[in-house]
Amino acid sequence: MRRTSQRPEVVIVGGGFAGIEACRALARAAVDVRLVDAQNHHCFQPLLYQVATAALSPADVAWPIRAILRRQKNVRVIMARVTGVDAEARRVQTSEFGLAYDYLVLATGATYSYFGHDDWTPFAPGLKHIGDATEIRRRFLLAFERAELVEDEAERERLLTFVIVGGGATGVEMAGAIAEVARQTLQHDFRRIDPRTSRIILIEAGPRVLPTFPAALSDYAVRSLRGMGVDVELNRKVTGCDAHGVSLDNGRIEAATVIWAAGVVASPAAQWIGAERDRAGRLKVNADLSVPGRPEIFAVGDTATVFDHQGRPVPGIAPAAKQMGRYVGKVIAARVEGRPAPGPFAYRHLGDLATIGRKSAVVKLGPLRLTGLVGWLFWSAVHIYFLIGVRNRFVVAVNWLWSYVTFQRGARLIGIAPR
Amino acid sequence: MRRTSQRPEVVIVGGGFAGIEACRALARAAVDVRLVDAQNHHCFQPLLYQVATAALSPADVAWPIRAILRRQKNVRVIMARVTGVDAEARRVQTSEFGLAYDYLVLATGATYSYFGHDDWTPFAPGLKHIGDATEIRRRFLLAFERAELVEDEAERERLLTFVIVGGGATGVEMAGAIAEVARQTLQHDFRRIDPRTSRIILIEAGPRVLPTFPAALSDYAVRSLRGMGVDVELNRKVTGCDAHGVSLDNGRIEAATVIWAAGVVASPAAQWIGAERDRAGRLKVNADLSVPGRPEIFAVGDTATVFDHQGRPVPGIAPAAKQMGRYVGKVIAARVEGRPAPGPFAYRHLGDLATIGRKSAVVKLGPLRLTGLVGWLFWSAVHIYFLIGVRNRFVVAVNWLWSYVTFQRGARLIGIAPR
Repeated sequence: MRRTSQRPEVVIVGGGFAGIEACRALARAAVDVRLVDAQNHHCFQPLLYQVATAALSPADVAWPIRAILRRQKNVRVIMARVTGVDAEARRVQTSEFGLAYDYLVLATGATYSYFGHDDWTPFAPGLKHIGDATEIRRRFLLAFERAELVEDEAERERLLTFVIVGGGATGVEMAGAIAEVARQTLQHDFRRIDPRTSRIILIEAGPRVLPTFPAALSDYAVRSLRGMGVDVELNRKVTGCDAHGVSLDNGRIEAATVIWAAGVVASPAAQWIGAERDRAGRLKVNADLSVPGRPEIFAVGDTATVFDHQGRPVPGIAPAAKQMGRYVGKVIAARVEGRPAPGPFAYRHLGDLATIGRKSAVVKLGPLRLTGLVGWLFWSAVHIYFLIGVRNRFVVAVNWLWSYVTFQRGARLIGIAPR
Repeated sequence: MRRTSQRPEVVIVGGGFAGIEACRALARAAVDVRLVDAQNHHCFQPLLYQVATAALSPADVAWPIRAILRRQKNVRVIMARVTGVDAEARRVQTSEFGLAYDYLVLATGATYSYFGHDDWTPFAPGLKHIGDATEIRRRFLLAFERAELVEDEAERERLLTFVIVGGGATGVEMAGAIAEVARQTLQHDFRRIDPRTSRIILIEAGPRVLPTFPAALSDYAVRSLRGMGVDVELNRKVTGCDAHGVSLDNGRIEAATVIWAAGVVASPAAQWIGAERDRAGRLKVNADLSVPGRPEIFAVGDTATVFDHQGRPVPGIAPAAKQMGRYVGKVIAARVEGRPAPGPFAYRHLGDLATIGRKSAVVKLGPLRLTGLVGWLFWSAVHIYFLIGVRNRFVVAVNWLWSYVTFQRGARLIGIAPR
């Protein structure tokens, strides 16, 4: 792809939180920005579990990258899959063409890690993209449909067993939402099965759920989940996933639907440039988030391994990705304009939030700790506020309000053909 | 599947407008109803083109059949694909099990007809199901993305050419909506292409669009479409579709996106029972919509060929399907209860509606004829009113209002994985 001007070219790979913020921070800089993503949309990942559990539609939590950046004239959005980087020649390679850069920002995010067991993937899908969410929704709703039809009692029990692997925020949120759908949304919909008898099992390898939260909030979350009928199993490791269920270190669960919300691994950006990475595949970076030995390449969000001023790892959450993206945009702008670079990246932790169903959440915000309905209202306000685009905020608010009042979920479509 | 009571069993195949209404009309009858559909959702087909053109999400125009019928205790909803009927043994066969019936209602709808050229299907998808709509949306949005990237001028023109085959209501509505997206929604989103230069071509084999409307309204529709930049080609026949475009009786159009909105053919219900059918595959029926020689089998909606009291064919539109479904439900209830049957089915035509973009529609309602903004407001009110479910009405209204005010479309997602 030809250059169109003499200005420095900044290529940003990835239209997630980090990539979009890097782009925006370059709005007034004398550069040409190319934002490359394999998808045409930015996905608001913190609410993806609501698509997977049929409360929201894909378009409520995703927004065309072009529409987000339409007013920023120095950006071109390019829908293409990046396959590699030639760091010597300073070129990004996509499946169809090459793209020269003066500065490169790697914001390619993370994907689920099956701890070396990639063969488990088809039996236990993770939740990273819109397509994952609609696939999980399809499996989970189809399990009830099939349970209504089978004559065999053991098979019916297997169909009504839902296993969520991993007790982080996504696992806790999925377990709570599935319990609500089974116990409330679907309770009058079937004639031969009672969805309220479903087993929802959350499996966590460590001693507590929400390990990054204070222990008291973890305990609260477990109590809330158990009150909703979720079977929370701590200190249990998954040793196998197959078409019939999951094997654990101390037993076996027959389950038609298994959802993976355990470890994450960075996308292969580190391999593209042959740079040093940590165990989770994240690039090691300098204090200005540039890659050692490659001052023109930056890594942000889940692609980089970064520590705060106390030496703790920066968590893989949206606010952290945004802060890194914004910071790198400023660093590049300063370099291009010959201004002194800003100081080293300093992560500011705003808090931790996780919801546990329709009217309960746990929130840690500095010294503030909220639980129950107050936590849930706070959580809702924050998420609606951060959704990109006024329309999305409004539609999501309407859908939530509706679900809250009626216990109904609007997006209960089982996809047969691709949708 | 075993019988669960001594009451007569009514099996309804298809959860479209006709099937749902037949079901509802049996709510107070002493029968057990089984509604069988391969999908879990009822689709509001008249608005499907709005999903295909990214204005609405799939869940805005589709609703779980179970949720619609949850309060009707004598109905079981069965998600299964019907593969045949043994009319002698009175059994419906699905891909997994058989289902005995005392009364059978065939409400299986129609699909697009390629006039014997089924090999055109992959190049020119029709619009009948949610999956068709998201596939058309994907192709149509992807064409702009690719046009932004190609260097070859002829290929760029081909990517920015959109052909709609068939000038009935669906074709007119698709052409108008695509023109709006290209001319307004996307106008600021690209840097190398100008979406406003897209060619949108509506091809109709007959002498006018909307052939069931009065000629003056057809003319108005053509003038409106041309005013929006749609190239309306009348009296032209498609002779071939391939991966590069369409061939016509008098020429050739290179186009990356072709949408089929021409003839329809009934689903194979007539073949299942080996009964007489018309040229479009629709079952010939008695005055009470039962199949000749099979008084226990009824055909409704697009599955049957029915005439009004003046001998004109009943059109394949939602109000007609609903009237037939409701009528057959009443006939079965009367027979079961030993009451005299209602008189022969009499179709009551309520009117014709078609929209031509964001603020124009044509409406014929008895002596009343509306065009322009007044027609559009009337059209909107009618469609919102008939959408099943209060929530859907409200969300659709919000989305329309938003699109109207901002020219934006919310559901612009290109699916890569199945969604």
